[in-house]
Amino acid sequence: MYKIPSLPSSDKKPRAIAILTSGGDSPGMNPAIRGVVRAALHKGIKVYGVTKGYSGLIIGDMTEMNSASVTNIVQRGGTLLKSDRCLAFKDPAVRHQAAMVLKEKDIDALIVIGGDGSLTGAHLLTQENNINVIGLPGTIDNDIYGTDDTIGFDTAVNTALDAIDKIRDTALSHESLFLVEVMGRNSGFIATHVGIACGAEMVVVPEYETKAETICFQLANNRLLGKGASGIIVVAEGQTPGLTTHLANVLAQHQLEAKVCILGHIQRGGSPSGHDRVLASCLGAAAVDYLCAGYNDVMIGVRDSIITDTPLKQVIEKNKKLDDAFFQLALLLHK
Amino acid sequence: MYKIPSLPSSDKKPRAIAILTSGGDSPGMNPAIRGVVRAALHKGIKVYGVTKGYSGLIIGDMTEMNSASVTNIVQRGGTLLKSDRCLAFKDPAVRHQAAMVLKEKDIDALIVIGGDGSLTGAHLLTQENNINVIGLPGTIDNDIYGTDDTIGFDTAVNTALDAIDKIRDTALSHESLFLVEVMGRNSGFIATHVGIACGAEMVVVPEYETKAETICFQLANNRLLGKGASGIIVVAEGQTPGLTTHLANVLAQHQLEAKVCILGHIQRGGSPSGHDRVLASCLGAAAVDYLCAGYNDVMIGVRDSIITDTPLKQVIEKNKKLDDAFFQLALLLHK
Amino acid sequence: MYKIPSLPSSDKKPRAIAILTSGGDSPGMNPAIRGVVRAALHKGIKVYGVTKGYSGLIIGDMTEMNSASVTNIVQRGGTLLKSDRCLAFKDPAVRHQAAMVLKEKDIDALIVIGGDGSLTGAHLLTQENNINVIGLPGTIDNDIYGTDDTIGFDTAVNTALDAIDKIRDTALSHESLFLVEVMGRNSGFIATHVGIACGAEMVVVPEYETKAETICFQLANNRLLGKGASGIIVVAEGQTPGLTTHLANVLAQHQLEAKVCILGHIQRGGSPSGHDRVLASCLGAAAVDYLCAGYNDVMIGVRDSIITDTPLKQVIEKNKKLDDAFFQLALLLHK
Amino acid sequence: MYKIPSLPSSDKKPRAIAILTSGGDSPGMNPAIRGVVRAALHKGIKVYGVTKGYSGLIIGDMTEMNSASVTNIVQRGGTLLKSDRCLAFKDPAVRHQAAMVLKEKDIDALIVIGGDGSLTGAHLLTQENNINVIGLPGTIDNDIYGTDDTIGFDTAVNTALDAIDKIRDTALSHESLFLVEVMGRNSGFIATHVGIACGAEMVVVPEYETKAETICFQLANNRLLGKGASGIIVVAEGQTPGLTTHLANVLAQHQLEAKVCILGHIQRGGSPSGHDRVLASCLGAAAVDYLCAGYNDVMIGVRDSIITDTPLKQVIEKNKKLDDAFFQLALLLHK
Repeated sequence: MYKIPSLPSSDKKPRAIAILTSGGDSPGMNPAIRGVVRAALHKGIKVYGVTKGYSGLIIGDMTEMNSASVTNIVQRGGTLLKSDRCLAFKDPAVRHQAAMVLKEKDIDALIVIGGDGSLTGAHLLTQENNINVIGLPGTIDNDIYGTDDTIGFDTAVNTALDAIDKIRDTALSHESLFLVEVMGRNSGFIATHVGIACGAEMVVVPEYETKAETICFQLANNRLLGKGASGIIVVAEGQTPGLTTHLANVLAQHQLEAKVCILGHIQRGGSPSGHDRVLASCLGAAAVDYLCAGYNDVMIGVRDSIITDTPLKQVIEKNKKLDDAFFQLALLLHK
Repeated sequence: MYKIPSLPSSDKKPRAIAILTSGGDSPGMNPAIRGVVRAALHKGIKVYGVTKGYSGLIIGDMTEMNSASVTNIVQRGGTLLKSDRCLAFKDPAVRHQAAMVLKEKDIDALIVIGGDGSLTGAHLLTQENNINVIGLPGTIDNDIYGTDDTIGFDTAVNTALDAIDKIRDTALSHESLFLVEVMGRNSGFIATHVGIACGAEMVVVPEYETKAETICFQLANNRLLGKGASGIIVVAEGQTPGLTTHLANVLAQHQLEAKVCILGHIQRGGSPSGHDRVLASCLGAAAVDYLCAGYNDVMIGVRDSIITDTPLKQVIEKNKKLDDAFFQLALLLHK
Repeated sequence: MYKIPSLPSSDKKPRAIAILTSGGDSPGMNPAIRGVVRAALHKGIKVYGVTKGYSGLIIGDMTEMNSASVTNIVQRGGTLLKSDRCLAFKDPAVRHQAAMVLKEKDIDALIVIGGDGSLTGAHLLTQENNINVIGLPGTIDNDIYGTDDTIGFDTAVNTALDAIDKIRDTALSHESLFLVEVMGRNSGFIATHVGIACGAEMVVVPEYETKAETICFQLANNRLLGKGASGIIVVAEGQTPGLTTHLANVLAQHQLEAKVCILGHIQRGGSPSGHDRVLASCLGAAAVDYLCAGYNDVMIGVRDSIITDTPLKQVIEKNKKLDDAFFQLALLLHK
Repeated sequence: MYKIPSLPSSDKKPRAIAILTSGGDSPGMNPAIRGVVRAALHKGIKVYGVTKGYSGLIIGDMTEMNSASVTNIVQRGGTLLKSDRCLAFKDPAVRHQAAMVLKEKDIDALIVIGGDGSLTGAHLLTQENNINVIGLPGTIDNDIYGTDDTIGFDTAVNTALDAIDKIRDTALSHESLFLVEVMGRNSGFIATHVGIACGAEMVVVPEYETKAETICFQLANNRLLGKGASGIIVVAEGQTPGLTTHLANVLAQHQLEAKVCILGHIQRGGSPSGHDRVLASCLGAAAVDYLCAGYNDVMIGVRDSIITDTPLKQVIEKNKKLDDAFFQLALLLHK
């Protein structure tokens, strides 16, 4: 349950808005779209759905949405509006073109659901052009400053857990050790949550160095405690492809045989969890409220259970930190 | 991710503690037990697991637990320690007997995982006897003051959603209306979250009166919006058994045929969600920290993402309110 | 894996066919529709999808389908074409009207996916009018003569099991007894499969009388064997509503307290299982093959792993029996 | 529902049997163990559970099981008895040692649940030593002659489908192509079932050669049919590690960008499906029946829905073929 702020009235209510999803898709983008559309229609605002993110925006690929456009999508993974990574949008001229498209259609504002790169595009669009933008954090990685939770993170954690619960069946049956790679190039949010939640023997994340010796020592110690020879080590993918396979090779040099599982793209899809559906619905509806209250160039997120705004500039420039005490808990509990 | 407070050191570290689960079981009790056991052992504290809640405590049915006792339970529904609703514990003499049992075994403190009734028992036990207690909120209903989230709530919401996603297949195929009853005798937390997350046409909760005429009007309006004739209405069970069937009869008098589904006990069980496993793990470990820092007669919960304590007296006497703006969102989004 | 017969060539290939789903929806109807559509288009046959079963057929509510019409439906529960129970179709004049609709559109044949009542309608339609029909068994109950498996049965069993696995968490935690009612008005197929697969202490089906005394004796005996006081009894709903609640009352008179869970409509929906998707895909494609080979007035099902046809007259008149040795196994294994 | 044969009576009823699981674990091994144990106890036969397959057998690591030993395992993945790949068992002297262990404990017969290699060990054991053996087909790959279905195959198909349903969300949202590798070193059973059931654009299996040009042509054709640019190609892993990545490289040379997902070990674990629990329960109970009827050196499987025996010699020497018409169906339906 989120606390939804009561915003001051303003005369800034847009007549028409556009909405797009951008970057890697994440489960919950659909309920976020639904939240925006239903809330906007409720206030008498026209809504245009843009196809394929910024790529569609540039060429004006959008259609007006009504209440029925978002019926029966709340439970669907992926994004109804499709998504894209649009490199062209890094060019100011292309962003200007996008602004022209919106103005020609009398669209006052744009709501962008996506990750860091997508929100950077939104920030530049409004800075350079007279178009209001609101961002929503849509990524499974949870590595967005200004919000405790991103849309899709909870589902990704549950999907990874589901997979690891299955892998543990085999680990226990064969008394074997598995290295399971989860998503997270720059951050260990998924890995740490998954590690605590699956009872991992160890969690390896980009934020902390983990020596192979530490893993070997830890596992040896667990066996002494009578916990059996099986084990799961959760590894965030990090920035170097092949990290987990490399780690397995290093462990092999320490006489510790481990199998590697890379969970990969299954973490992006699937029906959004209840948590993500509620979060996305609240943020989608709030995005419209903030627009109507005259806000611009902000991301709407949730901090300490309160729906709140953060300037996009901060969102882009600052990094969300993995809480140290929280990470230590993952290591403590496996003992 | 929860912020875990750094507690001041104290000389109150218990030598031995007992842990029990009480009242209706909820998914996440097992990772909470694991959190307590592993954190306590880490600090050199002995842990006894009590079988069947207060019923087992009274007769001293408990065994010492080691690290391996809680291996491979983090993903299991129910409670390893079993649970019970112990009416006898309402008697001060019986509570005194329980305290004697603990003292005989040199146990300094008791951690109780359960709902309102179970926490009341814990509060009275420490008030009347020289036994420290810490409570943890374990119930799917989320109706506990002092914590934003209870252990099991998130899983129950997901389980109900899973069921309703299936029911919607039939609702859509037959263009029919379903009344789905979810748990919640005194509160509409499950119903409201589920209602937002499943895209319900209406949510009926104990906190607000919902007239049959309103439902009929709402559904007629939705059809005008082109949303089709199918629909899901989520109903919290409330205090009067048969509420949902009664509502179906009233709707029938308004020429609105609706089928009734009562989700019932499936909402209590199942593998805990990632959210509940992380919450339960944090609270379990924190319970030990608070004990060691000298706290007594408090419940450890999470407020605004921070692990925090609330006196059990307040927990028992105060009611957690359903946020009005949040509830209104459920009604807004179905339009 | 099904053995797919090689059918003799014929000059009976229809130019255009219609397809409809009728009666209670079942998971797998969508892949069956897809199988029909893709196989027909492959052979150069036009396909019309009829909306809402016989109700839509009568009024000519149908649209031509192409390959893309059935993209991304294989994993969806319910039926894309919607379904209905059409009482009017019991009238020969109405069936004649339906035949006229088909002839006006130059449609040579109709494929009907549904249960007993729906297949009876198909049989009468072809007997009275010069329209070829092929039936496919689409019902979760598995009570159709001429096929070992019906489309939707496997998914329904899995859905019920999922629910019961959750209920067992509570049963074990509280050492309590649950009566779980599954679908099956006339037959115990779901109940028996579910009973074997969930490790039920007892299975109650319409085909056999089960005395309350037998249940009490069985449970008492299980406790003597050290199997604990918890238990699941699976009950097929039978023809009298309230059967399971009645049974709970009778058990209460024998000092055996049991909680009642009625799984209800969740058994009809949900993403079809792999088994049902494969079965439905094979049967859908085979229906087109049999039409092209000149078959009429038959149902295509699977017997002993071979795709095969059975005259609709037999399908309607005969009853599929629950194998006695198979049912006895359910009772044997709980011991 | 399987037809369970009525076997002739014999005087061969063993006094005591042992049971083990061997090779890669598969979901359903637990209900198979339960079936053996409960059926044997029912007939008054002692049962010993051997830990870690042949490795445990050689050193006599086994314990007597009672009815409660197999309570609450029917829904668990993996194997209670643990499993192992025991290379030492290829040595006749080691097999002789195993026979000695059994004889010392007055055990007349051994039931082995596993794949090809495990059943070979069982066959040699009985050929060389006076120990009766019965094999049960336990492997997810379904590549065992003498049975239509192996224990674990249905669950593995469902697990792979679950993953691919999630991947398709991303494929559709990004209009991208995925190569998904499923298990199957020597056979395309999993790949073909998964391919039909997930609506794959193409299925690549060891039994048939698939040229990159064919894939490119097929996908180009699908786009012409209006089916969109997204796609799933299911690839059986085959005998050469890296096959799927290689295929992606070849496609890239044809200007077809495809992402690679390797499902890996998640396919081995997880709660067994209803189908696998019923199959395993029937085969487990039947294994005891066949032993009592005097059978030896056979595998009990299911053919054309009938529980039946096949000499282990045949099981080992013959290969089960992928039905050609069935495979062609996978290719037909994607069009």
